[in-house]
Amino acid sequence: MVYVTRRERFNAAHKLWVEEWSEERNFEVFGKCANPNWHGHNYILFVTVKGKPDPITGFVMDVKDLSTIVKEQVVNKLDHKNLNLDIDFLPKGIQPTTENLVIHIWKQLETHIKGCQLHCIKLYETENIYAEYFGE
Amino acid sequence: MVYVTRRERFNAAHKLWVEEWSEERNFEVFGKCANPNWHGHNYILFVTVKGKPDPITGFVMDVKDLSTIVKEQVVNKLDHKNLNLDIDFLPKGIQPTTENLVIHIWKQLETHIKGCQLHCIKLYETENIYAEYFGE
Amino acid sequence: MVYVTRRERFNAAHKLWVEEWSEERNFEVFGKCANPNWHGHNYILFVTVKGKPDPITGFVMDVKDLSTIVKEQVVNKLDHKNLNLDIDFLPKGIQPTTENLVIHIWKQLETHIKGCQLHCIKLYETENIYAEYFGE
Amino acid sequence: MVYVTRRERFNAAHKLWVEEWSEERNFEVFGKCANPNWHGHNYILFVTVKGKPDPITGFVMDVKDLSTIVKEQVVNKLDHKNLNLDIDFLPKGIQPTTENLVIHIWKQLETHIKGCQLHCIKLYETENIYAEYFGE
Amino acid sequence: MVYVTRRERFNAAHKLWVEEWSEERNFEVFGKCANPNWHGHNYILFVTVKGKPDPITGFVMDVKDLSTIVKEQVVNKLDHKNLNLDIDFLPKGIQPTTENLVIHIWKQLETHIKGCQLHCIKLYETENIYAEYFGE
Amino acid sequence: MVYVTRRERFNAAHKLWVEEWSEERNFEVFGKCANPNWHGHNYILFVTVKGKPDPITGFVMDVKDLSTIVKEQVVNKLDHKNLNLDIDFLPKGIQPTTENLVIHIWKQLETHIKGCQLHCIKLYETENIYAEYFGE
Repeated sequence: MVYVTRRERFNAAHKLWVEEWSEERNFEVFGKCANPNWHGHNYILFVTVKGKPDPITGFVMDVKDLSTIVKEQVVNKLDHKNLNLDIDFLPKGIQPTTENLVIHIWKQLETHIKGCQLHCIKLYETENIYAEYFGE
Repeated sequence: MVYVTRRERFNAAHKLWVEEWSEERNFEVFGKCANPNWHGHNYILFVTVKGKPDPITGFVMDVKDLSTIVKEQVVNKLDHKNLNLDIDFLPKGIQPTTENLVIHIWKQLETHIKGCQLHCIKLYETENIYAEYFGE
Repeated sequence: MVYVTRRERFNAAHKLWVEEWSEERNFEVFGKCANPNWHGHNYILFVTVKGKPDPITGFVMDVKDLSTIVKEQVVNKLDHKNLNLDIDFLPKGIQPTTENLVIHIWKQLETHIKGCQLHCIKLYETENIYAEYFGE
Repeated sequence: MVYVTRRERFNAAHKLWVEEWSEERNFEVFGKCANPNWHGHNYILFVTVKGKPDPITGFVMDVKDLSTIVKEQVVNKLDHKNLNLDIDFLPKGIQPTTENLVIHIWKQLETHIKGCQLHCIKLYETENIYAEYFGE
Repeated sequence: MVYVTRRERFNAAHKLWVEEWSEERNFEVFGKCANPNWHGHNYILFVTVKGKPDPITGFVMDVKDLSTIVKEQVVNKLDHKNLNLDIDFLPKGIQPTTENLVIHIWKQLETHIKGCQLHCIKLYETENIYAEYFGE
Repeated sequence: MVYVTRRERFNAAHKLWVEEWSEERNFEVFGKCANPNWHGHNYILFVTVKGKPDPITGFVMDVKDLSTIVKEQVVNKLDHKNLNLDIDFLPKGIQPTTENLVIHIWKQLETHIKGCQLHCIKLYETENIYAEYFGE
């Protein structure tokens, strides 16, 4: 079993805000992440698949194909978008935290990986914070 | 003359949009940077000052003081904010491009640097794009 | 289960030296790391916790809280200090290798993580060397 | 159990090409990686071993010794070489993909690690692609 | 005057070899860079232009246009190629050192930059070596 | 004129302390950098030389030779040492700030660079602070 990882990037706006809470409670919990006019990040995404290298090509999966799938299913839908307002694959009202993003990026990708298995979604929000999800 | 540089970071939302233009013209010029619901970046700021090291302390300028000035005058005003809507030191209607940001960050800082000279403002918008301004 | 990681940094001095050994033996085993007047590193620390994201906040754990705990329990005690002489949570006479540091940083943190679990302590000593500990 | 990782680097040329296939088929599968006059990469290699730190030295394994072994058995054989033509430990005709490289670097190293266990070979081909192998 | 920089990447093979010299002299001067079967690098290219930001768009030059020019004139001609054999804009027999590459990349780009000025070509060969050229 | 830069690294201990001052005054000016038992850094050094590439070798200067000189004259004298106590080329009592280090590293190197000119010494103390010196 060999693990292969592809890095992709997207830049997006978001804020953390619970509609049912008062402004005061939102700022207490989310701090400056609750600022009303949004802020944003350069997100860095690592998608890892695992499998046996093909005896002829030496590929677990063609990394160009993996990149195409990740761009079509994830990056093109998130890049230069607002994560609270614009993303069809995020449930309505869900907080666009890095934790929730990795789970829903996994769901978005898992049925598109053929011939090997999706292993890990890792997402950097800043150089100091990242989340990982392994499908369960 | 020794040059000393301090790195700081801020995360902000913005879009590029000329009010006087049609939607079509805006997307033609700015592409996905014109998306209506904003996008954002992890900006990385490098502020360089120059001067002679003090013969006793060995400092051109205390870098902790430089960091405090940059945070008070620039980072705290930009971090987790919307660069089109929230920034008092950016002229109304100016495009928040990296080019315009370095000029106005320079103006915001130059009168606060004492005992040595501001030399350069360098700002990364993504790992692939940065702008620099030397005051003229 | 989602894994969330926070990066922190500290700068410290140390040397590797076994009191019971001759100077010759110390230099034979530890090389220049045994130099008597100390040397030092910019350590980079990654603390990973794991748990289920809260359905409302989307947090496994508030990363600001994680950062506060790591600073209070670890970084403030190690930063700008001597790892052989100044650290109350390192057993007396223990070598301050990256391996021993990750074990004792784990012990220092594990009782302070509430509502989710400590998963990994990863510590870079240089860009070429790091150690990881998963609690057993 | 503590995991210790050493980073090493080598620069090499290669191409991806199946002798039994037509030129057309090779370019269809491998794209520009099939260009006849080779291309190359700055490979970055991470070798991880695991074990218990020695109670006196605090070492799982002396990282200088690990570096020496990795250089002798792997880096010196790959650095400034052609991965298709020059490498004695790669089976003839095998594609020098990152996936195949991590498997054969593992085989090259596993018998040389004494007193602790080889845990992982991780190899970056570019900043966007890496492969990992854990020995099975 | 504001300086704007765009980063691009290409992966290529090369060797250093003077045809008129003996093999012995080539290895004496170029060391392992003279290995006959080539080696290669992940080159990282920084192209800097300078000018006044447009008062409406805030652009010195549209960075997407700059990227397109650099890709068409330089990156697509160098990526996954052999720098000694395949590059039409490198004079025959010239050593493909980082120093010579930055001069000829400058020549390749300077007539294509319109409305502002080419300022600097910076090229990393490895993380430890880079060259810069400012046009004279 | 082409500029060529070589990166080197060293790890050292230091503190900032003026003997003539009280402990109180030292901590007021230098903060935690005055801690008595030292702290340390992974310093990253960039040495830039400038000149015309040789028409045959394509070298401004053989970067291996530049690396050898920097190691012999600077890195081997600073690596795993105490910058306040152990360095023969630093004047007694001088503060080992990044500013003072770049000046004295320049002095240490300038007479050893032959056939081209020393252009810049750049030294990172942390990822957030660096100093540069151009010889005057």
